[in-house]
Amino acid sequence: MPEQKIPRIDGERLWHSLMEMAKIGATEKGGNCRLALTDLDRDGRNLFVQWCRDAGCSIKVDKMGNIFARRDGRNNDLPPVMTGSHLDTQPTGGRFDGVYGVLAGLEVIRSLNDLGYETEHPVEVSVWTNEEGSRFAPAMVASGVFAGAFDLEYGLSRADADGTTIGEELERIGYAGTEAVGGRDIHAFFEVHIEQGPILEIEGQTIGVVTDAQGLRWFDLTVFGLESHAGPTPMAERKDAMAGATRMADFIYKVAHDNAPLGCATIGSMSVFPNSRNVIPGRVDMTIDMRHPDLSTLDKMETSMRAGIDKVAGDIGLTTTLDRIFCYDPIQFDEGCIAAVRDAAEFCGFSKRDIVSGAGHDSCYISRVAPTSMIFVPCIDGISHNEIEDAKPEWISAGGNVLFHAILGKAGLVA
Amino acid sequence: MPEQKIPRIDGERLWHSLMEMAKIGATEKGGNCRLALTDLDRDGRNLFVQWCRDAGCSIKVDKMGNIFARRDGRNNDLPPVMTGSHLDTQPTGGRFDGVYGVLAGLEVIRSLNDLGYETEHPVEVSVWTNEEGSRFAPAMVASGVFAGAFDLEYGLSRADADGTTIGEELERIGYAGTEAVGGRDIHAFFEVHIEQGPILEIEGQTIGVVTDAQGLRWFDLTVFGLESHAGPTPMAERKDAMAGATRMADFIYKVAHDNAPLGCATIGSMSVFPNSRNVIPGRVDMTIDMRHPDLSTLDKMETSMRAGIDKVAGDIGLTTTLDRIFCYDPIQFDEGCIAAVRDAAEFCGFSKRDIVSGAGHDSCYISRVAPTSMIFVPCIDGISHNEIEDAKPEWISAGGNVLFHAILGKAGLVA
Repeated sequence: MPEQKIPRIDGERLWHSLMEMAKIGATEKGGNCRLALTDLDRDGRNLFVQWCRDAGCSIKVDKMGNIFARRDGRNNDLPPVMTGSHLDTQPTGGRFDGVYGVLAGLEVIRSLNDLGYETEHPVEVSVWTNEEGSRFAPAMVASGVFAGAFDLEYGLSRADADGTTIGEELERIGYAGTEAVGGRDIHAFFEVHIEQGPILEIEGQTIGVVTDAQGLRWFDLTVFGLESHAGPTPMAERKDAMAGATRMADFIYKVAHDNAPLGCATIGSMSVFPNSRNVIPGRVDMTIDMRHPDLSTLDKMETSMRAGIDKVAGDIGLTTTLDRIFCYDPIQFDEGCIAAVRDAAEFCGFSKRDIVSGAGHDSCYISRVAPTSMIFVPCIDGISHNEIEDAKPEWISAGGNVLFHAILGKAGLVA
Repeated sequence: MPEQKIPRIDGERLWHSLMEMAKIGATEKGGNCRLALTDLDRDGRNLFVQWCRDAGCSIKVDKMGNIFARRDGRNNDLPPVMTGSHLDTQPTGGRFDGVYGVLAGLEVIRSLNDLGYETEHPVEVSVWTNEEGSRFAPAMVASGVFAGAFDLEYGLSRADADGTTIGEELERIGYAGTEAVGGRDIHAFFEVHIEQGPILEIEGQTIGVVTDAQGLRWFDLTVFGLESHAGPTPMAERKDAMAGATRMADFIYKVAHDNAPLGCATIGSMSVFPNSRNVIPGRVDMTIDMRHPDLSTLDKMETSMRAGIDKVAGDIGLTTTLDRIFCYDPIQFDEGCIAAVRDAAEFCGFSKRDIVSGAGHDSCYISRVAPTSMIFVPCIDGISHNEIEDAKPEWISAGGNVLFHAILGKAGLVA
């Protein structure tokens, strides 16, 4: 079938909407900072809601602040086909992570309107609260509540570094909705997202058909030593928490390298006490993010890391606490949804490959309560969670078209 | 000579004064937090000044906020014999570091009064502003201005993390004095201090006759990588600033161990950007404190450290900046003052050994403009810059007595 005859979304309009949204919380280096439930996040939500209303959607907000923009189908008793992602960003985030999945959903609805298409099932676009977890841990907490992984009280009581809770901030910005969170049927859920890794671009593929998601474990490690004066304490007499922490970090990176390329480890945050340049640190707090798509390998990585930390602590005379504060096991997405994405990419004529998601996404939770899969497009140099995160307009458009046809495939075009 | 016939200070009174001062800024764990030029530092200064006035001293304050409490001699045209230290502490400091040297000086004056002794030279007790450097870098800035190492404008313009300057805080707490800083003769300067290391206690010696002070270099190291998402970026593709920083730290510690026991290195402070647990750090800032009493060895340690940092950066594809923000060369104290301390310890019958100061002290600067030496006493387990810093009352008393007789030796007892 010649490509021009395939019904398509308006890629330029999608790109333009992304650039408009990126003005809210724009950073000097061209990125975005819209931390969850801040005034800027509210402004982004308001813009999205306005656009959806302009496109004829009805809006519902649930008690976790998740937004659902609905375009009715012919049979509104059928469960919706849903797509969506998140509008919040990392502190120094980019213009595509999350927001692309939301606005691609909006673009699907706009294109259905333009084409005068009616679907059997309703189509909904969702915005999930606090996906990033930068402001409120854990990440993906609101899709997690939706999927029953956490209860509502837990979700609303998550607090930021200042002690302000999600519930308080939802009230403040006007997104404490009245709808129950979850507990309803979804016919299929899709999420289109930039890959956030380099594989598609390196291989020159346009579409990643996401079959699995890596398992993830988050740890908080605290190393306790003995504060003392930096001058007169000989090296051999020190119980230097920083010397222990850096050697432990080296070991943790080694565990990841030993399990590369699929295994990885990140130490994204570290705090030192008392944090004075001429005092031997008495305490270091650090976070560890460890991932692998195979559960038994992830278990082995954790075991190996724990042994290495204990060894270093014993050698230097330090004590430690290591808490696993969050984890999710590797995910296999729904065969039917994967097939819908693969078929849509083939129908549109895009190059594609199967791929494993290295990152956690709202889809990982939604897959517990609805048939789910994801669509990846490349991003420049594989960079994400960075202000220079970038993507080519043709990739963004391609992912939108695959989403459009995958949704049509599941929602059913009324003849 | 039987010990009881030697004129002595009142050790119990000195101990009591230390415990009274320690109530100002007392911490839960039994330490002290009187950061330079805070309200608590002002309260400590006020108490000291009141005690000195009660002991008949006149008080002068210079433009750097240094306090001089003077007991006249028979010939007030002679330059004073001076002793002193500092009242400010680390954020989690102890009850002896600095304050002991100040209150031992006060105790010498009280004892001279009790004994009805007149000295040829005036005797002064000094309090040097911001010795610790915890709030305002660099450390020992006010004794440095006094000694001509820094100019006054530089000293007053040093700012804390909030941008507040020393000059502003001196005005605010009422210690912006009118006296010129330095530029006057001092006949001899002594400073008694806890060792802040374990050597005297391990060897069972009561008095350390301080002959030298270690050279010190402070560096600010910044490691630049590339922020990216913690999940989908394979280990081999990462430019992880934290992975670089921890490997560099390991190398810096190795350089110190290779030059132990006299060489040492401390990484007391580290900051990570963007400091999010699922973002590969794009930047890490860290401080390095490196010390050795031999200048050429210190040079070699720095050279070796620089090469190691460059090697790690090259291996991972990172860039770095390494600034030497502060240094002082090793110090040899004055032979005459060292002899006065040694003679005083012998006269009192205390065990003693020569020792090198591992820490920087105000004496290191004052030695540039006056014959100077120091007296060390042990501290428990060698621990300092820590709330559990402790010393036995008999050590505190012994150091006070050595100071008393060293001062008498230099100031001249009027027969």
